[in-house]
Amino acid sequence: MGAPLVIGFDGDDTLWHSERYFVLTQERIMAELAPWVAAERFEEALLATERANLARFGYGVKGFLLSTIETAISLTEARVPASLIHQIVQWGKELLDHPVELLPDVAPILEDLSAQHRLVLITKGDLFHQEAKVAGSGLADRFDAVHIVAEKHVRDYERVLASVGVAPSDFVMVGNSLRSDIVPAAELGGRAVHVPYHVTWALEEAEVPEVLADRVTRIDRMGELPAVLDQLRGAGQP
Amino acid sequence: MGAPLVIGFDGDDTLWHSERYFVLTQERIMAELAPWVAAERFEEALLATERANLARFGYGVKGFLLSTIETAISLTEARVPASLIHQIVQWGKELLDHPVELLPDVAPILEDLSAQHRLVLITKGDLFHQEAKVAGSGLADRFDAVHIVAEKHVRDYERVLASVGVAPSDFVMVGNSLRSDIVPAAELGGRAVHVPYHVTWALEEAEVPEVLADRVTRIDRMGELPAVLDQLRGAGQP
Repeated sequence: MGAPLVIGFDGDDTLWHSERYFVLTQERIMAELAPWVAAERFEEALLATERANLARFGYGVKGFLLSTIETAISLTEARVPASLIHQIVQWGKELLDHPVELLPDVAPILEDLSAQHRLVLITKGDLFHQEAKVAGSGLADRFDAVHIVAEKHVRDYERVLASVGVAPSDFVMVGNSLRSDIVPAAELGGRAVHVPYHVTWALEEAEVPEVLADRVTRIDRMGELPAVLDQLRGAGQP
Repeated sequence: MGAPLVIGFDGDDTLWHSERYFVLTQERIMAELAPWVAAERFEEALLATERANLARFGYGVKGFLLSTIETAISLTEARVPASLIHQIVQWGKELLDHPVELLPDVAPILEDLSAQHRLVLITKGDLFHQEAKVAGSGLADRFDAVHIVAEKHVRDYERVLASVGVAPSDFVMVGNSLRSDIVPAAELGGRAVHVPYHVTWALEEAEVPEVLADRVTRIDRMGELPAVLDQLRGAGQP
């Protein structure tokens, strides 16, 4: 069977829903802005604003709100009523307060896996909000360690692996984002299991370079993970 | 001389300036809002908004901006022009982009101390912004570990101390905030050195309980720290 693995799990849209709440909030905002801006134009401009602000705001709800407010005012040439901006902030609070909803099969699968492997949560976003989600998920006890990081580049994974004390060859990352979970873990020399979520934020899209393809397994749902891990565990380094 | 200590340092307003930039930004905003709201009334309402939002937004610039926008719209009954809200977001970006300015004597003192003790940075706020400040400070190499935490309660210090592997009796926390740096470190059973900054955010104010007073040393400037540490190191547990 080989040695136990260290399995890294992404949080948002891998263990629990996240992006769909952002999408719903953005739809509410676009509906209110309809008298001034077409939804498509707003969506495109918001993405450009978020991309420009990313290195400064980082990930998470608060940066999303500030970029949304900035975009709404710019596109309407400041004709958007202040009352609607106030409403955007209130919807943002609802987004932050939304209860954690786990994805199917996550709870029993983590319970089983935690008996055989070391599990590490590696999630990015607002520190405050991520900590609240970890607590609200009821999954905290399944993890040997929880790392909330500002970015998920190769060097961030290197830091986490060093602190956990595991070699890349014994590390498997499980996540929905090719850009943040799959490609960097494979580049580092680990393996990666891609579980797509039904919506992906445009800034998380990426392609897996051909040379890394044999380090990546794609599954359709979390229920397929245990079988994939048994294979990886038996096979050792690909 | 006793054994080497583990010395925890707060970042904002202990090693580098922070609060004064918030104060300046708030003054610019209040000057623009003067046609609608008196500065004093705004200040009081903003503090109430920040307090109400704290458990949701956490610390840092983005939460400050959202609370400021919310307060400005509420107090003016939505008469504040959207262009001013746009301006607030831009000033917020300047706040995030502000270069790190170290407080006097910090760089040479940390260099000396890091040769004799283990130094740990324990700072709270936006993960992204704090990481940028640590990098911009040029001090990262002086620290054995950097912990960016969402809150600084006793349990957060316990977690840091466990990860560093030090007993509270060998731990000294240095910081400007009685609420976040001094009281919890003393409650935990460690020692604390209070270096006040010339302005304190109202939500960071606190009093040191009488029973903890003998665990706390107050100094006026960082230059006095080495002598205090020599005393603590010699004395062992108070």
